[in-house]
Amino acid sequence: MNEFKFINSIKQSYYRNNTTIKGIGDDAAVFRLPYHDIVTSVDTLVDGIHFSKETMKPFHVGYRSLAANLSDMAAMGANPISYLVSIVVPKNYSNYDLQEIYHGLETLAKKHQVDLIGGDTVTGEQLVLSVTVNGAVLAGKARYRDLMRPGDIIFVTGTLGDAAAGLNILLDKQSVDFGADYLINRHRMPTPRVEFASQLANIERLALNDISDGIASEANELAQASRLTIYLDEGKLPLSKELKQFPRAQQLDYSLSGGEDFELIGAVSPEYWRLVRDAAEQTNTPIAKIGEVKDELKNNGTVWIKRNETYIKLQSSGYVHKN
Amino acid sequence: MNEFKFINSIKQSYYRNNTTIKGIGDDAAVFRLPYHDIVTSVDTLVDGIHFSKETMKPFHVGYRSLAANLSDMAAMGANPISYLVSIVVPKNYSNYDLQEIYHGLETLAKKHQVDLIGGDTVTGEQLVLSVTVNGAVLAGKARYRDLMRPGDIIFVTGTLGDAAAGLNILLDKQSVDFGADYLINRHRMPTPRVEFASQLANIERLALNDISDGIASEANELAQASRLTIYLDEGKLPLSKELKQFPRAQQLDYSLSGGEDFELIGAVSPEYWRLVRDAAEQTNTPIAKIGEVKDELKNNGTVWIKRNETYIKLQSSGYVHKN
Repeated sequence: MNEFKFINSIKQSYYRNNTTIKGIGDDAAVFRLPYHDIVTSVDTLVDGIHFSKETMKPFHVGYRSLAANLSDMAAMGANPISYLVSIVVPKNYSNYDLQEIYHGLETLAKKHQVDLIGGDTVTGEQLVLSVTVNGAVLAGKARYRDLMRPGDIIFVTGTLGDAAAGLNILLDKQSVDFGADYLINRHRMPTPRVEFASQLANIERLALNDISDGIASEANELAQASRLTIYLDEGKLPLSKELKQFPRAQQLDYSLSGGEDFELIGAVSPEYWRLVRDAAEQTNTPIAKIGEVKDELKNNGTVWIKRNETYIKLQSSGYVHKN
Repeated sequence: MNEFKFINSIKQSYYRNNTTIKGIGDDAAVFRLPYHDIVTSVDTLVDGIHFSKETMKPFHVGYRSLAANLSDMAAMGANPISYLVSIVVPKNYSNYDLQEIYHGLETLAKKHQVDLIGGDTVTGEQLVLSVTVNGAVLAGKARYRDLMRPGDIIFVTGTLGDAAAGLNILLDKQSVDFGADYLINRHRMPTPRVEFASQLANIERLALNDISDGIASEANELAQASRLTIYLDEGKLPLSKELKQFPRAQQLDYSLSGGEDFELIGAVSPEYWRLVRDAAEQTNTPIAKIGEVKDELKNNGTVWIKRNETYIKLQSSGYVHKN
């Protein structure tokens, strides 16, 4: 069974609890209490699958795990409040390394004023770190993927592809003339765009998604959830000068499908674009307009990218159909 | 480093977020929004540590995992709302077994009207099931361990020691003349006392704790958190007729320190005892008065149990000092 099929098989066909607003199918789940929507998400990292001694120190494992969760909160427009840590620790794992994982979690938690409020520590064969974050947003203001409208501007924060380049440097598959530390850090200690997303609170309608699997994947998610067509401009994808030293094909591969950048992709009505730019400025967040949204019956649910003056279809995988 | 020391080392000395009410140190964590306190807890089960093919089918692994979490909600007096599932699945694990875990979760979730709202499914060497539950209680009405007062009645729901007896039957360490299925079911499919706890909502003050490590351990937690002395009567511990076929020493061992019964131990002012009994009746919950609370400076923080007309000290481990 593939993952998509599996997730569909466990998805409830309706919600039982009258506070449940959004279950499986967005960056995080949501339930409603008076005035607020509670937003919650979990992220699990397994040793040997999501990281290894070669790519991450224990400090980074903690830091990155919370970053992924905080990024989900940002993608929902929610203010993170607190987190729980469930950890499976192998018997031979050192106390120092275990403390370092918490040190990593703590370092990022402090920056965002979120509290470690609970968890579970158990013994097992393989290190597994599972972090659940809770946050809140004013009732009805969560930033779902299906909130795009025709005419919206597509924007993205930061630069794309750096984390993937950093990982490949760590795995010795790649070398660079300069900026190796920068790229590696982008993989190990990504910056969740929580403050920026929080500054967008005054915008009535906004669709957001965080880039965990590559912008090709997340743009397709937005297009499918909103049943609209996205047109991106390849020339406008924001790339760091560090990434630009790679061959052009690799720049595109990393930036379209590299993933784990934990930047945000969003869709907003042009009349609110100024507010988005202001929020970016106030929070020191680089931002770029990279495309637009159209309602084209025959293409809705798909993403197209402009390359050499023609639009070609962009698959979720990052694969681009050649004409 | 022992677990206690470790938990203390990661415990924050203060809360950063002004909505955080209770972090590490009770059955679940709590944060406050207008009108409601949100209660959240996580429980993690590891194959080979918390269960095995010999003791649980995949269905039971799911069922029991959610039961443990719902029991934490009951122990906080909270109404469970929804849950998230993080699961690490070995490559060779069958799809059927995986579905059965979710079937177990789902079966209990349906009974309590809680929704599966999210999660994470990843590959690893060993099956790890980590379930996070969210619930809510009216602001200020969570049932913390430190809410005992002198003169309170100590009560307990259901019967004690059955789950431990059932586990030992499964492990072939024990055999019984009758009721093996009953005892085994008490281990595999415990009954979280959610409805009963919810019916106690009108009682102004109430301390609750769920029995996951044995009543000796949980009673000591209450005594320590509230800085008072608990006196229990060994003759009043509620035991099932199935447990009573064991030698007396084993009955006591299982009921005091067997654990995983997921019954509730509580402390309530005598004037509210009638309301507790009414709630028990309305929800078909067996209930027994088993002791009382005193303020005895030299003994506060400890638990004493009456055996042969004398009170002897009851350690958290269930160990009883011989006179």
